[in-house]
Amino acid sequence: MGLWFTEKQTEDFGITMKVNKTHHTEQTEFQKLDMVETAEWGNMLLLDDMVMTTEKDEFVYHEMMAHVPLFTHPNPEAVLVVGGGDGGVIREILKHPSVKKAVLVDIDGKVIEYSKKYLPSIAGKLEDPRVEVRVADGFMHIAESENAYDVIMVDSTEPVGPAVNLFTKGFYAGIQEALKEDGVFVAQTDNPWFKADLIRQVYKDVQEIFPVTRLYTANIPTYPSGLWTFTIGSKKHDPLAVQENRFFDIDTKYYTKELHQASFVLPKFVQDLTV
Amino acid sequence: MGLWFTEKQTEDFGITMKVNKTHHTEQTEFQKLDMVETAEWGNMLLLDDMVMTTEKDEFVYHEMMAHVPLFTHPNPEAVLVVGGGDGGVIREILKHPSVKKAVLVDIDGKVIEYSKKYLPSIAGKLEDPRVEVRVADGFMHIAESENAYDVIMVDSTEPVGPAVNLFTKGFYAGIQEALKEDGVFVAQTDNPWFKADLIRQVYKDVQEIFPVTRLYTANIPTYPSGLWTFTIGSKKHDPLAVQENRFFDIDTKYYTKELHQASFVLPKFVQDLTV
Repeated sequence: MGLWFTEKQTEDFGITMKVNKTHHTEQTEFQKLDMVETAEWGNMLLLDDMVMTTEKDEFVYHEMMAHVPLFTHPNPEAVLVVGGGDGGVIREILKHPSVKKAVLVDIDGKVIEYSKKYLPSIAGKLEDPRVEVRVADGFMHIAESENAYDVIMVDSTEPVGPAVNLFTKGFYAGIQEALKEDGVFVAQTDNPWFKADLIRQVYKDVQEIFPVTRLYTANIPTYPSGLWTFTIGSKKHDPLAVQENRFFDIDTKYYTKELHQASFVLPKFVQDLTV
Repeated sequence: MGLWFTEKQTEDFGITMKVNKTHHTEQTEFQKLDMVETAEWGNMLLLDDMVMTTEKDEFVYHEMMAHVPLFTHPNPEAVLVVGGGDGGVIREILKHPSVKKAVLVDIDGKVIEYSKKYLPSIAGKLEDPRVEVRVADGFMHIAESENAYDVIMVDSTEPVGPAVNLFTKGFYAGIQEALKEDGVFVAQTDNPWFKADLIRQVYKDVQEIFPVTRLYTANIPTYPSGLWTFTIGSKKHDPLAVQENRFFDIDTKYYTKELHQASFVLPKFVQDLTV
């Protein structure tokens, strides 16, 4: 039956998929990187043996991370992505004509390099003139930025390896400083089936720093449990109170303005993590 | 690493989980039945090597199948479940005080027998005096029923083996006859990632028979892709137009009255299957 990749999402549960070929494998300065071609999901990027993105289902994560905060802000011009070296969030950000500058800060240049090579439909907009790519530590970049961004998106790996700092209250406090006075930030915050404690802690931390804190979900089949959460911290604008005329038509496969609202309506056991 | 169960959800993708022990395995008259104890999900029922239900995540499927149509109908008294021998949908139905009779018709008595034995938290209400359990062919029961039920729920397996008939237009026409004049029915209709054509076809078939047709979703981690769909056909009542005072507090872990509405707001690629 050939070569199969299995990700153990917990000690006792995982997903498994057929791998047609391995394009590249490397221990970078920061993590193990594998780029493989799967039979079900197209090309796939793995970091430390965890699925980061696949060609077939990447649109869900990237659309939902980008468009929810971007439509929440009335006029996003300067946007920062921490992590996200595959370029998928950048591609979605550029669909917003108000955006003048989109800065990507990923600590691992190899992720950017091999995404450009093997995930062109995802990384293809990294060369856009509005985009500035920096290979640097996102935590440090945040610490050095002040009143600089309208929207900040934390597109990190799980809180292991290089991303550990990105799930701390100190980091969220830094984001608060790096944002302009009516700025919005979003972070991917894992899944409520296996990581309930993490979601509860992040929500509490963000709530202590930002006046508006919200949790929303999306279905991502190759991520643990298939139910992913995103946490928003906002200084002023509420993602649930976007003016109807703020929305405009956008080319998406998952996000709609109706789903923008509905994605904040949580299953009871998830809602319970926010109170 | 011990014994692991793997379900290939497609030719090239699946889930895999650690099995602590096998309680029972049997080729019944209709299908292969396995009842196992898993490390992640508790006890789990498999039919023809497909996950039917697990103790840990069963509440999502059972709550969302039962409460959405039951709150849609203003006064459900007579309810039929086709399939559903594990008893989970019945347990949820009995939370509605208006229900006087809940009939379960499952073709395979062994599913009922071993669910009672190994899934007591799911099957425990099958002995309730309001419940009538029949080991019989659901397709035939529908064909023989006329103007008999307020709500019918089709809790079937995938459209293979004994459930093939339950995904035909003839079956939905039979349901239309079996329902009272303002009846509502719901069927589980698989996932949009791997079974888009099935969802499109069922939706079209139901729409040709029922004046109100709606699709809604729920996250079920042990089902293919984690994103499950349910299709509603209704003679009169619209699940999106439930009177606020129709809702009452109910003990659930997933369903809420807000999620009732939000679960009908579909990701764009799913919405596209309904037009």
